[in-house]
Amino acid sequence: MQTSVSGTLAEERIVTAALLVIGDEILSGRTKDRNIGAVAEHLTNIGIRLREVRVVPDDEDAIVAAVDALRTRYDYLFTTGGIGPTHDDITADTIAKAFGVPIGVDVRAEKILSDYYAAKGLGLTPARLRMARVPSGADLIENPVSGAPGFRIGNVFVMAGVPVIAEAMLQRVTPDLKTGARLLSVTIPVNRPESEIADIFSAHQQLYRDVQMGSYPLLRDGRPASDLVLRCSDEDRLAEAAATLKVALRL
Amino acid sequence: MQTSVSGTLAEERIVTAALLVIGDEILSGRTKDRNIGAVAEHLTNIGIRLREVRVVPDDEDAIVAAVDALRTRYDYLFTTGGIGPTHDDITADTIAKAFGVPIGVDVRAEKILSDYYAAKGLGLTPARLRMARVPSGADLIENPVSGAPGFRIGNVFVMAGVPVIAEAMLQRVTPDLKTGARLLSVTIPVNRPESEIADIFSAHQQLYRDVQMGSYPLLRDGRPASDLVLRCSDEDRLAEAAATLKVALRL
Repeated sequence: MQTSVSGTLAEERIVTAALLVIGDEILSGRTKDRNIGAVAEHLTNIGIRLREVRVVPDDEDAIVAAVDALRTRYDYLFTTGGIGPTHDDITADTIAKAFGVPIGVDVRAEKILSDYYAAKGLGLTPARLRMARVPSGADLIENPVSGAPGFRIGNVFVMAGVPVIAEAMLQRVTPDLKTGARLLSVTIPVNRPESEIADIFSAHQQLYRDVQMGSYPLLRDGRPASDLVLRCSDEDRLAEAAATLKVALRL
Repeated sequence: MQTSVSGTLAEERIVTAALLVIGDEILSGRTKDRNIGAVAEHLTNIGIRLREVRVVPDDEDAIVAAVDALRTRYDYLFTTGGIGPTHDDITADTIAKAFGVPIGVDVRAEKILSDYYAAKGLGLTPARLRMARVPSGADLIENPVSGAPGFRIGNVFVMAGVPVIAEAMLQRVTPDLKTGARLLSVTIPVNRPESEIADIFSAHQQLYRDVQMGSYPLLRDGRPASDLVLRCSDEDRLAEAAATLKVALRL
């Protein structure tokens, strides 16, 4: 009985990640999250598969439970939110707790903050120093926008919640990430509702089981239409599946 | 030794919910989710606390695991996505599996779809009929936008992913939801960075432990500023905490 798997796809390296968004303000609807979409797009572009996102409140138990579930299940965990100077910013302390390591003022982070505020003619108050609290053993993530660094501990990257800072931190850590096969995609816009092309589309998925096929309904010029999205890490295979689908749909 | 809890707050009914967003397209970054913010805002407004959000791919195991975790932990679970007519729409079948009930074409849903398409001069193809598949024992959720209904089974509300349809379905089910104490909020804009007001803010939180206080950094007119948000279900208590905080901050 043969157990071999043919082709290169099975041998490809797949690198996975999860994102944990931390913050009462997202769950109350007061602040509309913009990090999920940005992190998802960035990771897809560099060859990391975002497999799960969770949003939890500024609550120690909820954060620890989510961090533990996600950091063990995926290659990387990114978090956003809760690393500012106010009492509701509990992410750093909670991550330390999840890893079972001590936390205190990090001398490298203190230097960064001290320099940042000195350049503005300001001193390092206790509140500002709170942003230098980093779990023991963590590496810092530079914050080119507002000084206060994020940090990496193990496979967890702790970033700010403000989208422009989160994005800058993600760019900073990107060179250090192992990446895998990029999932390429082709979008085929169809000016028919999903229900009219579902049978052909489904049959096509059966022919190309190694190509993920998804259909997304939308209104185009006020009429029900579909975007068919094909995803595969093999460029030639993807092109073939897209070309034959267009023929099948008489596009 | 006294164990009584004073005041009405401890006796208030708190109703909780989770949201599960289902879809590869959100995790790839291709589609930017808009349901999380809309559902969060709506639930907050009607007195339901959104406690957790998860985003998972169109994958049976991932959906079942999330549904089981969330429906047992919170009063309600809302889901968006994956109830269309194409092969990648697996939400209905997966929810049936999570509940351990059979699934088949629902006669009520079939009638709705049949009428909807007949009004457009169209018939009920197998693909369209797929959208009438509903787990046994579920109630339908009307879709005033595009016919195909969502459904409710137990404490789980299964809605479409297209934001305008998800919103309409949420409005439809709102009268059937039990609601609890509304969490009221006051936002105090402060034209100082968080690090300058953190100590006063933190001391104020200690004085009003029954009022949740969060600080959100932002740029206002290009300068670092903060929005301080106070949340409490007791209107008078909230007003007092906000008024005294303004005094403490010399606003």
